[in-house]
Amino acid sequence: MNGMKSSAIRELLKLTERPEIISFAGGLPAPELFPIDAMMRVSADVLENDGKAALQYTTTEGFLPLRRFIANRMKVQHVETCEQEILITSGSQQGLDFAGRVFLDEGDVVVCERPSYLGAINAFRAYQCQFKDVPMDDDGMRMDLLEETLKTTERVKFIYAIPDFQNPTGRTMSVERRRTLVELARKYNVLILEDNPYGELRFEGEILPAIKHFDTEGRVIYLGTMSKTFCPGLRIGWVSASPDVVNRFTIAKQGADLQSSTIAQRQAAKFVENYNLDDHVQRIISVYRKRRDLMLSGMEKEFPKGIEFTRPQGGLFTWVTLPRGFNAEKILERALEQKVAFVPGASFFACGGNENTFRMNYSNMSEERIVEGVKRLGHVLRTL
Amino acid sequence: MNGMKSSAIRELLKLTERPEIISFAGGLPAPELFPIDAMMRVSADVLENDGKAALQYTTTEGFLPLRRFIANRMKVQHVETCEQEILITSGSQQGLDFAGRVFLDEGDVVVCERPSYLGAINAFRAYQCQFKDVPMDDDGMRMDLLEETLKTTERVKFIYAIPDFQNPTGRTMSVERRRTLVELARKYNVLILEDNPYGELRFEGEILPAIKHFDTEGRVIYLGTMSKTFCPGLRIGWVSASPDVVNRFTIAKQGADLQSSTIAQRQAAKFVENYNLDDHVQRIISVYRKRRDLMLSGMEKEFPKGIEFTRPQGGLFTWVTLPRGFNAEKILERALEQKVAFVPGASFFACGGNENTFRMNYSNMSEERIVEGVKRLGHVLRTL
Repeated sequence: MNGMKSSAIRELLKLTERPEIISFAGGLPAPELFPIDAMMRVSADVLENDGKAALQYTTTEGFLPLRRFIANRMKVQHVETCEQEILITSGSQQGLDFAGRVFLDEGDVVVCERPSYLGAINAFRAYQCQFKDVPMDDDGMRMDLLEETLKTTERVKFIYAIPDFQNPTGRTMSVERRRTLVELARKYNVLILEDNPYGELRFEGEILPAIKHFDTEGRVIYLGTMSKTFCPGLRIGWVSASPDVVNRFTIAKQGADLQSSTIAQRQAAKFVENYNLDDHVQRIISVYRKRRDLMLSGMEKEFPKGIEFTRPQGGLFTWVTLPRGFNAEKILERALEQKVAFVPGASFFACGGNENTFRMNYSNMSEERIVEGVKRLGHVLRTL
Repeated sequence: MNGMKSSAIRELLKLTERPEIISFAGGLPAPELFPIDAMMRVSADVLENDGKAALQYTTTEGFLPLRRFIANRMKVQHVETCEQEILITSGSQQGLDFAGRVFLDEGDVVVCERPSYLGAINAFRAYQCQFKDVPMDDDGMRMDLLEETLKTTERVKFIYAIPDFQNPTGRTMSVERRRTLVELARKYNVLILEDNPYGELRFEGEILPAIKHFDTEGRVIYLGTMSKTFCPGLRIGWVSASPDVVNRFTIAKQGADLQSSTIAQRQAAKFVENYNLDDHVQRIISVYRKRRDLMLSGMEKEFPKGIEFTRPQGGLFTWVTLPRGFNAEKILERALEQKVAFVPGASFFACGGNENTFRMNYSNMSEERIVEGVKRLGHVLRTL
């Protein structure tokens, strides 16, 4: 427990509950896109036809038809797999925890992107690991610096990467670097933990092959989730990995919570059986694309010169870098006075520093509030 | 991971899926008692009126009305508490895992009953602890031997106990021993982890005060669950503890899975709002009581002399002790040939031994199958 600290994001979520705040702080999907009517039909169907099974215990590995659907769905990311290589988890957060539990001993090293997902850093830190973070550019983690790190660091257990529309930066790792990443992992005999919650939420161009696509020897452990393409409230994530790793994660899950919710798994399976998930994802994409456009064009217009931000091609976030010397936490206090919020970036840096950054979410606010919120934020930034 | 091994119970659950087997092996509730019609109404109500919130992320601590209901429900066990002292977990198994995560370092000692719940032993073992187990009699863990253990053992972090209708023995700790247990924990400055999934399922007499009832200084961490009184498929458990412990468990949960299923929490909250949980529990009790009676009277009649078994006043299990030298795993092989199953007892002993024991579950089989299964088992035992 000594390594654990409260998640700044979870604490900030409490702010977003205040309805008067225009919050770009969370990472919540747009609830108005949840397929509520479909879920009502699906839910009635599951309880009417399979009620006893839906409310009973099930296997740790998860509901077989859902595992089969997910295995097949991985083709979207150019990954060929089968249900034996899929374990259902309680959100992909649980996959992050199991990676720590299964692979990390005290003092082991996790290599991650600089910056990286706060929830992953906290999950790994609970297992008393060390971090080495590798700088990114617009094509993702820099492979020359990664190799430098792997060459000079002992006890690296795995490289943690979010290849598509990374949280928090919104950046995407190029296909060429994905290939190189797998080669470097092989060369230095480390694993790769690929966390891909956003890959299907691509606004322009083709979905890229997952890092796991380039894996020929079971070196990549892929974490997926339905939280961003369907509904987070069901807590349906998955691990796609070699049968050996899936078996070890399954044993971890037996101890951790026995199994994920039976009824939620059956609801999700019934939804994808009776409805077209692609259509649903397209609806999400068209709404989020518009919101991203409004946020980026607002920032172009309202933010003073010298402030940089990323231009994500999908996902939920853009990432802002202020000139050196500015402190985003201090600015957040000023922003909250204007009833607008974001997440200060420092907590996304496993090795500290970078107080002059912050993350902006565009999926959870209406177009009007995005325009108004960016305007207010621009005002705050200009007065500094 | 080195301490983890596959749960024998989970593996055996696979056997119970074969419909021709009369299985007393699992620990499953009777699915024909699940309130399916009520759940259909509750589910429609939640989605129709709070659909967006029900499918969205929520706080790590859990859905406030459900925490409030549970805090109040603890009065049944003579515990006065409030929602700030309740954390919703994904089944009480997750509470066991968090206890290990928060309190155990490698080499720390857990004191438990001999025998104890396999899923707890496995959950703690994952944190590389040691075990000291304390013999029981019909009044539960023996307090003289517990004190002996506490006096002579260093690095004890907590005492793990299942006070009511213990899994696997069906035994209940006397009220006097509960009081003594808390006194000893204070005297030797250790915590108590009270796991109470079955306390409300009492067939005769009054529900006893929980161990936590005697706790005046936040030394008892109570784990509860709706899996046995409502439906396991929702995965709703809880921790009731001091605000400091609840806070540490909440941080553990942030890293482990962020939160339990939002929709499942809201369904459970709506169920207890619109229906009388006591009525539902009474229905369960009247069915299980009959099944226990049939199992015990069958065992009296069919089992050969020299075989002992417990006479539980509630819960799901009775516990069988064969004469020394018999091996329940070998007998299981013979029993399976007769299409009847139980769980060999050895894996419930944290410190090994006791191959001449097994656990029998009576909640999950019909009256006819209980009678027939015990008859078959008696036949197997008589041929030895």
